[in-house]
Amino acid sequence: MTQLRVPGPTPCPPEVLKAMAWQMVNHRGPEFHQMLTDVTADLKKVFQTKNDLLLLTGSGTGGLEAAVTNLLSPGDKILSVSIGVFGDRFANIAKTFGTDVIPMKVEWGKAADPDVVKKAVQDNPGIKAVLVTHNETSTGVTNDLQAIAKVVKDAAKLLIVDAISSMGSINLPVDAWHCDVVVTASQKGWMVPPGMAMVSVSPEAWQAHTTAKIPRFYWDFTRAKTNFDEKKENPWTPAISIVYAFTVALKMMLKEGIENIFARHARVGQTLRDGIKELGLPLFADPAHASNTVTAVGIPPGLDGKKLRQILREEYKVVLAGGQQTLDGKIFRIGHLGMVNEKDVKEIVSSIGKVLPLAGFKK
Amino acid sequence: MTQLRVPGPTPCPPEVLKAMAWQMVNHRGPEFHQMLTDVTADLKKVFQTKNDLLLLTGSGTGGLEAAVTNLLSPGDKILSVSIGVFGDRFANIAKTFGTDVIPMKVEWGKAADPDVVKKAVQDNPGIKAVLVTHNETSTGVTNDLQAIAKVVKDAAKLLIVDAISSMGSINLPVDAWHCDVVVTASQKGWMVPPGMAMVSVSPEAWQAHTTAKIPRFYWDFTRAKTNFDEKKENPWTPAISIVYAFTVALKMMLKEGIENIFARHARVGQTLRDGIKELGLPLFADPAHASNTVTAVGIPPGLDGKKLRQILREEYKVVLAGGQQTLDGKIFRIGHLGMVNEKDVKEIVSSIGKVLPLAGFKK
Repeated sequence: MTQLRVPGPTPCPPEVLKAMAWQMVNHRGPEFHQMLTDVTADLKKVFQTKNDLLLLTGSGTGGLEAAVTNLLSPGDKILSVSIGVFGDRFANIAKTFGTDVIPMKVEWGKAADPDVVKKAVQDNPGIKAVLVTHNETSTGVTNDLQAIAKVVKDAAKLLIVDAISSMGSINLPVDAWHCDVVVTASQKGWMVPPGMAMVSVSPEAWQAHTTAKIPRFYWDFTRAKTNFDEKKENPWTPAISIVYAFTVALKMMLKEGIENIFARHARVGQTLRDGIKELGLPLFADPAHASNTVTAVGIPPGLDGKKLRQILREEYKVVLAGGQQTLDGKIFRIGHLGMVNEKDVKEIVSSIGKVLPLAGFKK
Repeated sequence: MTQLRVPGPTPCPPEVLKAMAWQMVNHRGPEFHQMLTDVTADLKKVFQTKNDLLLLTGSGTGGLEAAVTNLLSPGDKILSVSIGVFGDRFANIAKTFGTDVIPMKVEWGKAADPDVVKKAVQDNPGIKAVLVTHNETSTGVTNDLQAIAKVVKDAAKLLIVDAISSMGSINLPVDAWHCDVVVTASQKGWMVPPGMAMVSVSPEAWQAHTTAKIPRFYWDFTRAKTNFDEKKENPWTPAISIVYAFTVALKMMLKEGIENIFARHARVGQTLRDGIKELGLPLFADPAHASNTVTAVGIPPGLDGKKLRQILREEYKVVLAGGQQTLDGKIFRIGHLGMVNEKDVKEIVSSIGKVLPLAGFKK
């Protein structure tokens, strides 16, 4: 069987795939009302939140756009903490919709220093919100969100979090850390195909929403909340099959228990990093902030990264991802989130070890 | 088996549902490149177009938002031809993003008169674009799009068409009728679950796009086109399972042949309308413009429409839709698009006939 180990989409359990094949029902009828109610309640358990939880039909990037357009106005000053491609994308979205983005760029491979975030917030008193990536999929780095959240909330700023590749895999207690908006997407740790973004919205975020002037229609939080609160529906026809898949996947996740899921991801991440080091390959991320869902592996001189991934894909059925933008050709990336265990990553390390010499690598 | 006969989602064939259960692949890998290439080419055959065809992950309403934000600028004067709830929604989207909407409202149940559209275009010389619904799902009316398109294009305006509930079921040759942007969605005549919008973009629309100033990121046509043209990819992680479903559903559609599909929908529509009339129930739509995908049935005095639909759903497994907004309680709606034949609608008529006396109807 193929080992699909890109950082999303992730492999889906057979039970989840079976649910994807369920026949359509009326999205404005009683069966679907019940499903949406249950899925929303279960998602809140994983988000560890009592905030509103909205399901939006679209990709994770759509969820990020929704966060920006629902909370901000053109001209609002915001701090963007970026540690890679997806942090830059988040800032780019905010710029596109006319906010005044103060970029805090961190060297790729490193995490953001909460003290530097604190200073940036202090140095720019007019800041309304801080955008931050919890887990940067392009570099395999996890920010210390708890510490960053503390400095942002101590300064009474809005905290908007891209948790697309962390939520459900790495601990992120939304309420305990006072995150105002947290965005994730179905194709990551949830073991569900792509097609939906899930967003939590705090009371402070709702407060900001009431005066936010960036125009929005499809992504409008008020429409999503009103339709759910009053009718247990979505304003627009939702990705029904993705909701089906969630009904199964979330039961599996809650049965395993979120603490156990986080611990499994930590063990799997450590096992993989140990294996990669043993092969003699460099890890790209600062070891103090290595991600437990995505590992970026440096491509040393002599190794043909494209050839490595091609042989792995064609002869070993192991599918890995390349580097993005300036990291193209410099790293390859292994996703290990959702349905994954130590045996899976050991197999991957073993396959990589066999292919390395064929792709020019000399230890 | 349940007869799901709302105007979308529509029932999916077993082969399509099987494809929904396919395991995930890398959306940036060779298998998916091939699928996206094939699905795009097949969609163009149904759209009868050589224009660009973009797949956007989202609901149909997202596709409408994409059309507005990619072609227009704040302050642009546009004519909105609305014959029901979805025409009003389209206008509402355009207003939300700051365009100057001149509403042309037609009595619900009637189609737009092309001569009136012509006059409206002449009377408002600064108009840049015309928004029009091909098939109005809320009233069961199909506009004479060919005639409307002629007057709009003769006046050299952009023509933006909501074909969500018509494309693939009712003839709409995009190139022959010179439609600039045409939007549809997966859960309608395509026999695929909801989760993707499909949009065709003409050269004139691309021209308008280059100067259109409404901010856009997620829905940006340039990003969608560039990623497809250069890499056969989507800019953001797409609804992969919906693309799987399309690979199967489109083959089925092209095997039947689009002319045969349109003829089948015409026969099915006529059979249903004849049956409803025989039951003694009034048809809401102007008979000259009755839709072949959705039929709105008037609720005469004495008949409890909600009870009718409830008994049909609970005891006959026939699921129909109610009326929307001011039509709530005044009509119910039957969807007959996608996987549907004369036998299906005859069964529905027979079930309605049995339940009518139980819901207070006296012929």
